[in-house]
Amino acid sequence: MNFSNIRIVLVETSHSGNIGSAARAMMNMGLTRLVLVKPRQWPSQDAISMAVSAVSLLETAVVVDTLEEAVADCHVVIGTSARLRTMPIPLLDPEQCAAKALSMPPPQQVALVFGREISGLTNAELHRCHYHVHIPVNPDYSSLNLAAAVMVLCYELRKYALTRPQLLPVPATLHGNKLDDGGAWDQEPATAEELDRYLTHLEAVLIRLDFHKPQYKRPLMLRLRRLYQRLQLDKMEVSILRGMLTATEQALRAGKFPVENPTNTSDS
Amino acid sequence: MNFSNIRIVLVETSHSGNIGSAARAMMNMGLTRLVLVKPRQWPSQDAISMAVSAVSLLETAVVVDTLEEAVADCHVVIGTSARLRTMPIPLLDPEQCAAKALSMPPPQQVALVFGREISGLTNAELHRCHYHVHIPVNPDYSSLNLAAAVMVLCYELRKYALTRPQLLPVPATLHGNKLDDGGAWDQEPATAEELDRYLTHLEAVLIRLDFHKPQYKRPLMLRLRRLYQRLQLDKMEVSILRGMLTATEQALRAGKFPVENPTNTSDS
Repeated sequence: MNFSNIRIVLVETSHSGNIGSAARAMMNMGLTRLVLVKPRQWPSQDAISMAVSAVSLLETAVVVDTLEEAVADCHVVIGTSARLRTMPIPLLDPEQCAAKALSMPPPQQVALVFGREISGLTNAELHRCHYHVHIPVNPDYSSLNLAAAVMVLCYELRKYALTRPQLLPVPATLHGNKLDDGGAWDQEPATAEELDRYLTHLEAVLIRLDFHKPQYKRPLMLRLRRLYQRLQLDKMEVSILRGMLTATEQALRAGKFPVENPTNTSDS
Repeated sequence: MNFSNIRIVLVETSHSGNIGSAARAMMNMGLTRLVLVKPRQWPSQDAISMAVSAVSLLETAVVVDTLEEAVADCHVVIGTSARLRTMPIPLLDPEQCAAKALSMPPPQQVALVFGREISGLTNAELHRCHYHVHIPVNPDYSSLNLAAAVMVLCYELRKYALTRPQLLPVPATLHGNKLDDGGAWDQEPATAEELDRYLTHLEAVLIRLDFHKPQYKRPLMLRLRRLYQRLQLDKMEVSILRGMLTATEQALRAGKFPVENPTNTSDS
């Protein structure tokens, strides 16, 4: 069973004891990669106490400052969400989450992201996720302990891997990556960081084109992010898209498109 | 979703905080009935802290002295076990555990039993269970936190109930109980206490018959317990079996069976 490409990301955990409990749950289920985004206290004696003998996992935990850093090299990012969103991201249940994660074998990288104990993930963080996962809870009492949530998702990963061993390991080569439907693909998938760079580039060009007007605070870029995250772009496609942007910029600089009548309705 | 007939039984929990965490996990998944067998400390401030707003569940928790009392009125008792047994009891995985529990609708009673943090359930306690349930864990790191184990089994109950709503609620009447295979049954199932009384009666008669010799310390009665627990006896059948024992006793008293050549090989 190979979970070496699946990381658990805990964002701004308040109670370090929960990090220890989460580490123990991960180790119970065979996961080993823990990434902490700005834990309130680290290192922490509480975490060590609660981890019991999973303390090795705390020692190898990676600590970063932002979710972007935590998932920069990931190909699929799945965030836990208890909330319904006004602009919904594709929603998985824990079993579907396991299926999705295990459909991306190494060297592809997968992140399962858990928010703050009280407030969860911010909207901006939720929008960085390709998928959301919702643990079915009693609607009258939906406040899950962080480590309990980690346990449920890791348990489903292990269960899925145990009952569908044919899925693992899938040898992934540069030109033999697998898609969700099991079909082969000819290019490596793009990482979250590569997509981010493309979106930053796209935004700059759209502003230059006067199509995107940040001062209006419309969710255009969020909608485009969601659109491109759904696509699971490969590296070649990102390269082509960025080439188109660069060509547009060159044309703008050369004065080929003197934007005289800018579009006014850019998004909804 | 009706889990009113399913109780979580925690046996001799050392750390009361775990009871609070377990209560929270139960409430997340919609379970409400908690039974504590000799908790080390009760009531407990640690339990209240960890339960967060599931504290109502602690207030209605039933505290008893023995597992026998905790499950006396139960029709199915499922115990968590990390160990392989020399005399194995039928073993379920968490999903099968949920299916089994939900196949016994109210007014039938189901217990899920969790042992001590360090040492689990004793052999005697494990033998009181009709089934064992094993959570698939990393064999190199199998020590599950108590509340994490409660979470996994309660999560599977909720998941099973949500995905197979046709199972719930099944109206159960005196003459319309359901069996595992969905077929109707004409009699109410016997409780754990009724089976215990039968086994006590049986043992007395077997000793009187000189078939069972407790001084030899053979596991005859354990084997018979396992056998009868597998049967899921109904009340009428227990009544018939006990009638046979009583008839045997009467015959013995009347001297009809002067046990002259007692059997020597009673069990293995």
